Amino acid sequence: MSIRIGIYGYGNLGRGIENAIRQNSDMTLAAVFTRRDPATLSIGSAGVPVCHVSEAEQWVGKIDVMILCGGSATDLPEQTPALAKQFCVVDSFDTHARIPEHFAKVNASAIKAETTALISAGWDPGMFSLNRLYAGAILPDGKTYTFWGKGVSQGHSDAIRRIEGVKNAKQYTIPVEAALDAVRSGSCPELTTRQKHTRECFVVAKEDADLSRIEREIKEMPNYFADYDTTVHFITEEELIRDHSGIPHGGFVIHTGKTGKDLEHNHVIEYRLKLDSNPEFTASVIVAYARAVARMHAEGICGCKTVLDVPPAYLSPMSHEELIASLL
Amino acid sequence: MSIRIGIYGYGNLGRGIENAIRQNSDMTLAAVFTRRDPATLSIGSAGVPVCHVSEAEQWVGKIDVMILCGGSATDLPEQTPALAKQFCVVDSFDTHARIPEHFAKVNASAIKAETTALISAGWDPGMFSLNRLYAGAILPDGKTYTFWGKGVSQGHSDAIRRIEGVKNAKQYTIPVEAALDAVRSGSCPELTTRQKHTRECFVVAKEDADLSRIEREIKEMPNYFADYDTTVHFITEEELIRDHSGIPHGGFVIHTGKTGKDLEHNHVIEYRLKLDSNPEFTASVIVAYARAVARMHAEGICGCKTVLDVPPAYLSPMSHEELIASLL
Repeated sequence: MSIRIGIYGYGNLGRGIENAIRQNSDMTLAAVFTRRDPATLSIGSAGVPVCHVSEAEQWVGKIDVMILCGGSATDLPEQTPALAKQFCVVDSFDTHARIPEHFAKVNASAIKAETTALISAGWDPGMFSLNRLYAGAILPDGKTYTFWGKGVSQGHSDAIRRIEGVKNAKQYTIPVEAALDAVRSGSCPELTTRQKHTRECFVVAKEDADLSRIEREIKEMPNYFADYDTTVHFITEEELIRDHSGIPHGGFVIHTGKTGKDLEHNHVIEYRLKLDSNPEFTASVIVAYARAVARMHAEGICGCKTVLDVPPAYLSPMSHEELIASLL
Repeated sequence: MSIRIGIYGYGNLGRGIENAIRQNSDMTLAAVFTRRDPATLSIGSAGVPVCHVSEAEQWVGKIDVMILCGGSATDLPEQTPALAKQFCVVDSFDTHARIPEHFAKVNASAIKAETTALISAGWDPGMFSLNRLYAGAILPDGKTYTFWGKGVSQGHSDAIRRIEGVKNAKQYTIPVEAALDAVRSGSCPELTTRQKHTRECFVVAKEDADLSRIEREIKEMPNYFADYDTTVHFITEEELIRDHSGIPHGGFVIHTGKTGKDLEHNHVIEYRLKLDSNPEFTASVIVAYARAVARMHAEGICGCKTVLDVPPAYLSPMSHEELIASLL
């Protein structure tokens, strides 16, 4: 029987989920929920109902897993614990520092309602977290490094757009090759923020804007840019649309560790993602975990889970026999 | 309480397990079991009993997990199902084609005896299997490639040593850079055996041996070398010892896949291992899974498992709270 998915929030991530469902033959999109007027929303899946979020309750029993596609700042802290009272849910909550608190709230809801929830699915948190865990457990005498990019940081792009005189902007986070190489060498370097990543900004300025002031304001912006080597390029709106419309991202988790009688042997574990579309890849991870959630729920496993808690086999539509015969 | 480990078989892998246990403060080595005369065996851990394999039965209740360090050809197919009747066990059975059969036998023993077994731990099968599973589940419209090396293949080195006139030999399997790049490009190339790996052989010949015959015999050896571009270097015994005494290995699992409305976006997931010591890294993986086995057994989970079945969090000595706060 097909796993019936609800999409709660229809932005970049929601559209990614919609596309990913089509790539998984054991799933169907049951409904899309929006805070907007449903009549104004045109989705990519013919015949699928678009409902207002206030109607969600009527879908209890008709949706196996509700995928929450809101933002981590204000949407998910409210929505995930609330929806977990009625549905099995998956979200991509990515405010690392607040994950324990979010976990506790969602877990309380899910245990009480006997639903199954999975929070913080995606690639970081998500696949990167898994790789940090596996590598650290295997090589305890070692050190894990995470690098992000090359990719577009939405938060940093937004910060530039808020500067007076800026019409539009895209910011790329770029890992420093020399830092990657130093890490891979097994020397366990201590790296500063500046040594790990650079930031490259493509800015469309308003007519007559003071470019040197804009550049200075970007480079001196605390937290966002001041601790990094930042490059600013002023380009036209046409160039921005032509060359910087994508949402690529990715990164590296590299763990080096030592083994042997005198810790004389060095090992490097490296996990790399190179993604053309950040939201679509995140959506693909979420959809695989939605399968796991449906399966765990069918087995009577309730409460809040994370990617760290899910047996890998639960992500695959293949049977256990197929998995051990073909992948192990 | 410390997890009490037994090592069953004391070769390269057994010694690796012994070292890895010292790197994990929640484990102790309880005893080493050997088929040799225990009096002749000198191990690296002072005060740890060395016992004959026939004495294993007396250790029931004093060992939490028995780690089997025998070979996959003849040892493990007998030993793992037999030992699983009395102990929780972990092995590194790596004959891919016979894993389903091995799984069934070990599972039958473990279910009957209410023990917990985990087979085929290591890096391939093992960490590579996990990465094949995760990547394929996340990006179903894609293709997974596995490359091995640069590293020493024991089987191929042995095959060379059996040639008339060969005194000693080491064989390296090397992935072809152009093939790695073609895979990373997302073009999903069809690659022949020859296109994926080359083989490099360092051979010490006996005095007066016919070098050109040896080289020809190596290069024409069916299954082992005939399908590969093979290079043969004749060196002295001193050079072999000086430059080729290590047992490095590693490799790559690369999966590329597409997402989007028209599958217009490409993604690359790459997992790489670069290992100074193949047996020590394998041992490190096994020891982490021994922890998982002890934990699953304490929770009443019995039967045969594989790396695909184990929740990642079970590998770590950290609490769930620590894990989600620090790694997620």
